[in-house]
Amino acid sequence: MELGLLYSGGKDSTLAALLLERFYDVTLRTAHFGVTDDWQHARETADAVGFAFERLQLDPGVAEEAVERIREDGFPRNGIQQVHRHALERLAGEGYDAIADGTRRDDRVPTVSRAQAQSLEDRHGVDYIAPLSGFGRGAVDRLVDAELDVTVGPSEAITRADYEAELRAIIAEEHGPGAVAGCFPDHEQTHVTDVRRPE
Amino acid sequence: MELGLLYSGGKDSTLAALLLERFYDVTLRTAHFGVTDDWQHARETADAVGFAFERLQLDPGVAEEAVERIREDGFPRNGIQQVHRHALERLAGEGYDAIADGTRRDDRVPTVSRAQAQSLEDRHGVDYIAPLSGFGRGAVDRLVDAELDVTVGPSEAITRADYEAELRAIIAEEHGPGAVAGCFPDHEQTHVTDVRRPE
Repeated sequence: MELGLLYSGGKDSTLAALLLERFYDVTLRTAHFGVTDDWQHARETADAVGFAFERLQLDPGVAEEAVERIREDGFPRNGIQQVHRHALERLAGEGYDAIADGTRRDDRVPTVSRAQAQSLEDRHGVDYIAPLSGFGRGAVDRLVDAELDVTVGPSEAITRADYEAELRAIIAEEHGPGAVAGCFPDHEQTHVTDVRRPE
Repeated sequence: MELGLLYSGGKDSTLAALLLERFYDVTLRTAHFGVTDDWQHARETADAVGFAFERLQLDPGVAEEAVERIREDGFPRNGIQQVHRHALERLAGEGYDAIADGTRRDDRVPTVSRAQAQSLEDRHGVDYIAPLSGFGRGAVDRLVDAELDVTVGPSEAITRADYEAELRAIIAEEHGPGAVAGCFPDHEQTHVTDVRRPE
């Protein structure tokens, strides 16, 4: 069965790929708005860990709406949530048997409720799978330590391809670099560099 | 890392074992009250699919409470839920790095809320994992078709080892066979006979 997985190059979506690869032909799909080339970092990670990779083009109008929301809110949560929902809708229309993302049990954003999952499945005739949603933070951290080589650093220094990078770039372009710090709190990001595969 | 998985011999808990075996040393643990020998069916399935197996002894007092609850309610949901919570508490005290069960996204019972999962982890210093909680019914059915050889039939005819078999036996012993049908609706059960492993 063919499965498309929303992929950022970070530890959660990489671990999700490892959980699914026994059961599905997994293609890693990095969503982007065409604003920056950050998706290339996800492709490099996909190559390093040995998965097929394709970009997933999102609607630039959704990025503009998300940026407005983030600027109004003063924090990114709701805007990121809008983009994630849009990305899942796009991915669900790509003809896969199943689609997936890297959301964990303890994630505050993005989240996909049971009702949203069911609606996505019913409308698109596709299985939606969140393979990490039964894993807490501690379990994910321990699996990452055991399975992945990871680089950790502050958001602005790590080369990965989640929605945040492009939304930051749009805000910086439209409102100046100072506006970014006002909306996005400092936090650590991760970027996977390799997978320890069984010998 | 050592992981104990609550195991009935059914398709859900068998699929959960397959999802976890890449990352953990999995032991299948079948909870029982010492009322019937139904746990032996789970051991046969565990042997067939190639996993380590041990029984997990539950407190017979919990079975009595669950039976009372089921008789009062006229349906099994709350009683089964009580037993599942007790089984997870017992399993969490067994010294594993992680414990798991086969609950799915669409299960009405048993369920483990995010708060219950966190509490179990904090009190016992163990990771609790529900590897199927991000999979809907359709995804599980398709994976089972692809990966498992399964026998399907009505609850009373299928030899498996979930809590239901022993609770039914207690009710039949105490109140006669007719009392069982009044509390447990007819539904299909499954029993796994083999796993299709990659060549």
